[in-house]
Amino acid sequence: MIISEKNERIDYLFDSEYKIIQSKDVFSFSIDAVLLAKFVSLPLRKGSIIDLCTGNGAVALMMALRTKAQITGVELQERLADMAKRSVTLNQLDEQVNIICSDIKALPAFDSIHQCDVVTCNPPYFSNQQTVKRNPNPSLAIARHEIHLTLEEAIQVSSQLVRQKGKVAFVHRPERLGEILALMPQYRLFPKRLLFVYPKRGKEANIMLIEATKDGRPGIKVLPPLYIYDEEGCYTKELLTLASHRD
Amino acid sequence: MIISEKNERIDYLFDSEYKIIQSKDVFSFSIDAVLLAKFVSLPLRKGSIIDLCTGNGAVALMMALRTKAQITGVELQERLADMAKRSVTLNQLDEQVNIICSDIKALPAFDSIHQCDVVTCNPPYFSNQQTVKRNPNPSLAIARHEIHLTLEEAIQVSSQLVRQKGKVAFVHRPERLGEILALMPQYRLFPKRLLFVYPKRGKEANIMLIEATKDGRPGIKVLPPLYIYDEEGCYTKELLTLASHRD
Repeated sequence: MIISEKNERIDYLFDSEYKIIQSKDVFSFSIDAVLLAKFVSLPLRKGSIIDLCTGNGAVALMMALRTKAQITGVELQERLADMAKRSVTLNQLDEQVNIICSDIKALPAFDSIHQCDVVTCNPPYFSNQQTVKRNPNPSLAIARHEIHLTLEEAIQVSSQLVRQKGKVAFVHRPERLGEILALMPQYRLFPKRLLFVYPKRGKEANIMLIEATKDGRPGIKVLPPLYIYDEEGCYTKELLTLASHRD
Repeated sequence: MIISEKNERIDYLFDSEYKIIQSKDVFSFSIDAVLLAKFVSLPLRKGSIIDLCTGNGAVALMMALRTKAQITGVELQERLADMAKRSVTLNQLDEQVNIICSDIKALPAFDSIHQCDVVTCNPPYFSNQQTVKRNPNPSLAIARHEIHLTLEEAIQVSSQLVRQKGKVAFVHRPERLGEILALMPQYRLFPKRLLFVYPKRGKEANIMLIEATKDGRPGIKVLPPLYIYDEEGCYTKELLTLASHRD
């Protein structure tokens, strides 16, 4: 069986023994995916989880380290969805993780994927208003810029897919904090946990993670800050043990 | 000249040589006031600054350590405004710091205090929707609960008093972050700097500071986190040197 194709490589999935098929031509997962998979509150054994904008499947695969629940990853781009499917097989996770190639805006029409317990999303970060130059590589541009999916659409779809009292977790840039906090409650998602991630001490936050509860009570908690690197340039213990504190 | 009255005491103003008249019967300043005075961007020499909800004048006095600009503190409660006035005299700051006893909602009608360069505000933290029990002491209840001033009114008045491109800085609780980020832009105040303050490592943030620019460009920066206490229970160097990094 041919697992990796031309210009692809097989990497370890961060600090796990899982492997992931990557290609710099189309997409490689980043620390953002690792953080989202470690940050989100997950059921231990039962339930259903959807990962929107799954890319090459990093978040979906990493969540399988923390839960026995069914995980569905949804990706618009065929090539990426295909890579994700092959990574699922490579890790022998076919019974737990399912990859769908679809525009996430089409999902709410399917009854079978409503009433999820958890929705995760690592959406495109750059709005069309922002003056960040688009990547000339169309695949990377779709993943980074709001070409096919706006932040509001991602939030709306997440709310439609999750059950009442279910969790929705996003990873995004702190610059968009105001919009996210304004939009989520418009779609019945009430932010409960907010985590700012700093590359190292003394630097501004460059990643934020937010988890909301559908029809939850208002009232946000700002978690202790997380640093990616310590003084020696190594990953911090807090990053490596992020998920294990709550499981 | 009698400076302090019955049930009053004179304390040092945090890490400064300034003194402040306090009374646990009516109000004592907290670390929140210290943080606001150290966090806000101030002109060094010229300009005018208004401190709303000044209480016994802690923020107004502490800002005088950082700027030669004219500072006006505004307080609704007569007893507190009187204490603040006596503290100004005690520190020989009468030429720089002026205390007014007024409802801040009355201020925009006075032309003389429009077009400020900077507005600071340490407003009541608890909304009337919150189930926090009101303090039976009416003076403390007015300072802590939105009895005479809501968050939206404080933001609206701040915007009316500040000049275009001027700064408005608030200290508040992280629980109200969503409201603050939603309300400020409605009154032309665009958040630019956000600082979360943690009592010590491993704890959730319990104070937030936010600075907005009137008619500024959107785009928020989340500053490196600030801890109040170090592992030994002493004030951190970052707290003590907060303002000096930018002056």
